[in-house]
Amino acid sequence: MVTVECITDLLTPEGDSRIRELVLEEKPVGVVLNDEPVGTAMVMARDLEELAVGYLFGQGLIEPGDKIFDIEVCEQGRINVYAEVTPRPDDEMITTSGCGGTGKIARRLLHEDYPEPADFCISFHEVAELIKRTLAWSSLSQDTHCVHGCGYYSEGAFQVCYEDVGRHNAVDKLMGAILLGRFSPRGAAYTTGRLTSDMVLKCARMGIPVVLSRTAPSSLGLDIARRSGLTLGCYVRPGRVNVFNAPHRIVREGLSDKSDVSDRSDKSDVSDRSNRSDRSDR
Amino acid sequence: MVTVECITDLLTPEGDSRIRELVLEEKPVGVVLNDEPVGTAMVMARDLEELAVGYLFGQGLIEPGDKIFDIEVCEQGRINVYAEVTPRPDDEMITTSGCGGTGKIARRLLHEDYPEPADFCISFHEVAELIKRTLAWSSLSQDTHCVHGCGYYSEGAFQVCYEDVGRHNAVDKLMGAILLGRFSPRGAAYTTGRLTSDMVLKCARMGIPVVLSRTAPSSLGLDIARRSGLTLGCYVRPGRVNVFNAPHRIVREGLSDKSDVSDRSDKSDVSDRSNRSDRSDR
Repeated sequence: MVTVECITDLLTPEGDSRIRELVLEEKPVGVVLNDEPVGTAMVMARDLEELAVGYLFGQGLIEPGDKIFDIEVCEQGRINVYAEVTPRPDDEMITTSGCGGTGKIARRLLHEDYPEPADFCISFHEVAELIKRTLAWSSLSQDTHCVHGCGYYSEGAFQVCYEDVGRHNAVDKLMGAILLGRFSPRGAAYTTGRLTSDMVLKCARMGIPVVLSRTAPSSLGLDIARRSGLTLGCYVRPGRVNVFNAPHRIVREGLSDKSDVSDRSDKSDVSDRSNRSDRSDR
Repeated sequence: MVTVECITDLLTPEGDSRIRELVLEEKPVGVVLNDEPVGTAMVMARDLEELAVGYLFGQGLIEPGDKIFDIEVCEQGRINVYAEVTPRPDDEMITTSGCGGTGKIARRLLHEDYPEPADFCISFHEVAELIKRTLAWSSLSQDTHCVHGCGYYSEGAFQVCYEDVGRHNAVDKLMGAILLGRFSPRGAAYTTGRLTSDMVLKCARMGIPVVLSRTAPSSLGLDIARRSGLTLGCYVRPGRVNVFNAPHRIVREGLSDKSDVSDRSDKSDVSDRSNRSDRSDR
């Protein structure tokens, strides 16, 4: 169980009543790498192996290619990860803006070179599938209004959705799953949260070619997308992708190459923003 | 300026167009206490004096009553705070779940005793005013979909709204303003974000008696509200407060005492959740 039930007082000027509410459980979880405590994150206690590995990746302590030997999830809210990692210098850590318990990144990660995004395109039909399956993954969001989801589309199919109190943790869980070899980095991630710097940074470092959000990017998130070359799509709905960087990876049905979008950069018409009522916030 | 304009490709299966988007600027800001670097936060670079003091409060390094001598906001994204603070032992820091760049709290703060919430009530009319003024504070939320707001009602009037990339930073800015003596802690805070542990913790430590949210609490946020005795209201709309703890501080118009709510704890009718369509997410 990751929810608790409680009785609340619904107050209005006309009168009061009592209602049952489901509240998401938020728990502190300590992450330990090779017997060295790294940090404690506030999370939804599900998919903790993925979370721990993704948390270590987010902090720059585990990189793709590092060998992970074992993960122990202890009852007491501690996760021990054993891995062969390259020792890295002590970094200046930056506190991030995002929900989700990751909260810190090494400053060097903001300025390093990113791997070339994997060769990958996604069609409108596949984007719609990714969105629908992510939003339908569980009833937690509807029940508690306190989780973010991060869905993943790869190998021609919807693969998984991770959920957490914070959008960062949900992305961390996906990163951990990829590092554990469960999914290829050649895919599209869709988050219900905003694409701030740390969110995009993790995807760029992993080489994920398409990163989509239900809502907005920040300027630093966009900067990182531009530097890494990944496709950044925001305010994404079935049949509608607002692409802030590298539109060539969003293709029409049945296309296996990019011929339909070759003239996208030639367009000169620019409208003011439209369909704002279709957007959701933060 | 805290926004940048960019041109995006709006793609649909039927065709593409280009639109202008405003993107919120997210910047790293270093916080230094008495010449000792404390951390770097990703923020919206506005109200940085308040942010720096609130950030230090959030980490347990400044407490109410500590004397703040000077704050220097440097061009290079660094804020120097000079204050007379009580030396505190090295704490185990916890990475939090929330948006907003604060990201870390000392573990001891989760378990300490909180001050008695200040004697304060707020009417439905005042709650409506707080919500409306907070949401109308600036066009940033509508323009960028990338900010959270934290409004404050005190001394019988709406006082201020702070905005930031993250809900945490917005609350930090309010905490900083209170510590700088600009507002009394005897008031009601309203956030557009979720009330996770770190959000409620800061308000509890400050002795703020009423904490309201447009959306949901987490279980730890609710636990802290219960232990401190503060009023926690969620899914708050004009004329409607869903109170998860201490409903007696929400009163009808013209009441200066709590006589109308004395029987609230006697109610035995419990409905399932209603009006869910009125809720907004995360």
